Amino acid sequence: MKISQRVQALTTSPIRRLSPYAAAAKAKGKKVYHLNIGQPDIETPELFMDSIRKFDEKVIAYSNSKGEECLVDAISKYYKEWDMPFEPADIYVTNGGSEALRFAVLALCDPGDEILVFEPFYANYNSFARENNVIIKAIPTSVENGYHLPEEKVIEAAITPKTRAILLTNPSNPTGVVYSKEEMEIIARLVCKYDLGLISDEVYREFVYDGKYISFGTMPEVLDNLIIIDSVSKRYSACGARIGCIISKNAQFQQQILKCCQARLCSPILEQVGATALYSTPTSYLDAVNKEYKKRRDTIKAALEKLPGVTSSNPKGAFYLMVKLPVDDAEKFAIWLLESFDVNGETVMFAPGNGFYSTPGCGIDEARLAYVLKCEDIEKAIAILGEGLKVYPGRK
Amino acid sequence: MKISQRVQALTTSPIRRLSPYAAAAKAKGKKVYHLNIGQPDIETPELFMDSIRKFDEKVIAYSNSKGEECLVDAISKYYKEWDMPFEPADIYVTNGGSEALRFAVLALCDPGDEILVFEPFYANYNSFARENNVIIKAIPTSVENGYHLPEEKVIEAAITPKTRAILLTNPSNPTGVVYSKEEMEIIARLVCKYDLGLISDEVYREFVYDGKYISFGTMPEVLDNLIIIDSVSKRYSACGARIGCIISKNAQFQQQILKCCQARLCSPILEQVGATALYSTPTSYLDAVNKEYKKRRDTIKAALEKLPGVTSSNPKGAFYLMVKLPVDDAEKFAIWLLESFDVNGETVMFAPGNGFYSTPGCGIDEARLAYVLKCEDIEKAIAILGEGLKVYPGRK
Repeated sequence: MKISQRVQALTTSPIRRLSPYAAAAKAKGKKVYHLNIGQPDIETPELFMDSIRKFDEKVIAYSNSKGEECLVDAISKYYKEWDMPFEPADIYVTNGGSEALRFAVLALCDPGDEILVFEPFYANYNSFARENNVIIKAIPTSVENGYHLPEEKVIEAAITPKTRAILLTNPSNPTGVVYSKEEMEIIARLVCKYDLGLISDEVYREFVYDGKYISFGTMPEVLDNLIIIDSVSKRYSACGARIGCIISKNAQFQQQILKCCQARLCSPILEQVGATALYSTPTSYLDAVNKEYKKRRDTIKAALEKLPGVTSSNPKGAFYLMVKLPVDDAEKFAIWLLESFDVNGETVMFAPGNGFYSTPGCGIDEARLAYVLKCEDIEKAIAILGEGLKVYPGRK
Repeated sequence: MKISQRVQALTTSPIRRLSPYAAAAKAKGKKVYHLNIGQPDIETPELFMDSIRKFDEKVIAYSNSKGEECLVDAISKYYKEWDMPFEPADIYVTNGGSEALRFAVLALCDPGDEILVFEPFYANYNSFARENNVIIKAIPTSVENGYHLPEEKVIEAAITPKTRAILLTNPSNPTGVVYSKEEMEIIARLVCKYDLGLISDEVYREFVYDGKYISFGTMPEVLDNLIIIDSVSKRYSACGARIGCIISKNAQFQQQILKCCQARLCSPILEQVGATALYSTPTSYLDAVNKEYKKRRDTIKAALEKLPGVTSSNPKGAFYLMVKLPVDDAEKFAIWLLESFDVNGETVMFAPGNGFYSTPGCGIDEARLAYVLKCEDIEKAIAILGEGLKVYPGRK
């Protein structure tokens, strides 16, 4: 039985592929601090389970392909509070932001078409592209430049007749960069000039720690080309609900997305009921979460600064940062930490940086750290990382 | 902004695309009997909501990419009761049977590759193929032959160097055919001879009304090529849960599927909790449901036999049948029934047959009827269909 080339081209998740090593470490009695996965420890608002517990339909029936009306209305209301003009007709519910991204790639690109991204980027963008025979064209950014965008002419030079979209995460996973108004205007100009899709993955919108967040959804000039990817996963610490949405004011585009929605029938009904309730979470919850993550960002930043040879950027949003480590190979180091190292029975796990690049050879000595633990645990985890760096045989 | 060719090639669902006409009819006060969609009216076992109501994790966290262990174990146990040797390692949880089908297509086919199906077939197979630039090569079957398979040489002649898999639904949606042991042996021989994937969509396994069901999973000679698509949707009347699975004993294949699973992170956690409980539903539930559908099958069959000019097969399983209607165009007739016809304020909706074919021009005068209503409603619905046929202007 032949296996397809495209599925073989998929890589295992850099966030999850070391899990067997972590499991083995735990089996030996080690405690592992997980900085590898963006799974917040913040409690999900109780509204979620409360609303689901009250659900009393006798038949768990198919839902609407484009999403339950109550959820779509709640999302539209949320966007209006952010001064973004998205009506219920512009919003389709998806199985997490993941499915929204897949639909966007599918609807904009035929095989061989290209999507521009800024490297390092969320690792699964590679998967969504390769599954669909689409080429990710990565424009490098660097820790030294805080992972901000290069000059307009550098980006423009990467656009070819095959380019169909520019895809950004803002705030960024994995770098934590939040793009400035000027950077967004560069993107907006290029998108309009070349009539490209602008796929804006804004699932970390609430997680901005210095200054106000600006969404492409508030820039009228790009609205016809804009596709927003959103999700309740991070906002309400409900990653396991798998409820996201794809938003566009381009009616021709959304007509196509409806067909994609119909092909998989619908999103799960109970999680939609719960997600609807989440959108009525008081803003005080989001404010408190933001404050907590800001403290964690400050904590991890301060802890990393104490480690000689480690370079990190100054993340302004999301709950990740990329660091350059003084090691031969961050993946080998990560495995070594799990297999061969501990401080009083405790060790740390991170995601190797190479999985966040598509350019071969990039990110070998980098790591993505997710600061999703309590401050005292972050301090302990980074201290363990530092001790490990002192004795790791592959130290540079 | 350019829209991709492949997404434009998707068609709207034949099952759902007439919904606006039904909504308009209801807005005018008409009662509509829905024979268009396979949404059972059977109550979901209470175990489903009971188990979910008890879920009390504080954080709705990501689940395992390949599915919650308890659910995978429950599915494995269920299969062993059917004498099928599927271990937990062979089973990955998916977002409904839909995602399982998409993964199978992705892992077996590159763009331009072909999958053999028997026509008429479940309409969304077209979507999963077109999304992935895969060609559905349809081998015709006919109402006159009860939609059974053609001779072995006819099937063999359709195999080309581009053929990667044979895809069957057994029992079949939309025809209700259940393949005989002899038919399955033909398929097994061809699959082994040409080393093809055998994608066996068995979501209606419990819905067989005459004789015992045989799964490809009990035929050792095909196990290395077999991919079973399954779902709780129909079995436990839990369509809105969107929990399915993809099963294979081919470890190389499943390794690839794991990467597909990781790319979308996980299936929704609550629905997995509920689905786990569903697998402990007493067999008396499934027996009672089977009896009820058998009664409905007999009812619809008897009612259709009274309608002059209508040809139907003798369905043995699932809860659908295809009928040939004495009309110019079944889609026009369906719209006419919703817009311009009623019997005492009541009308009927069905899925036009052309959507279940990929050969252009086929199925124009056919319809798929889902017998998912109570017997008295089925009788009323078919009587209304008969009255409509008497006065429809496009009657042949």
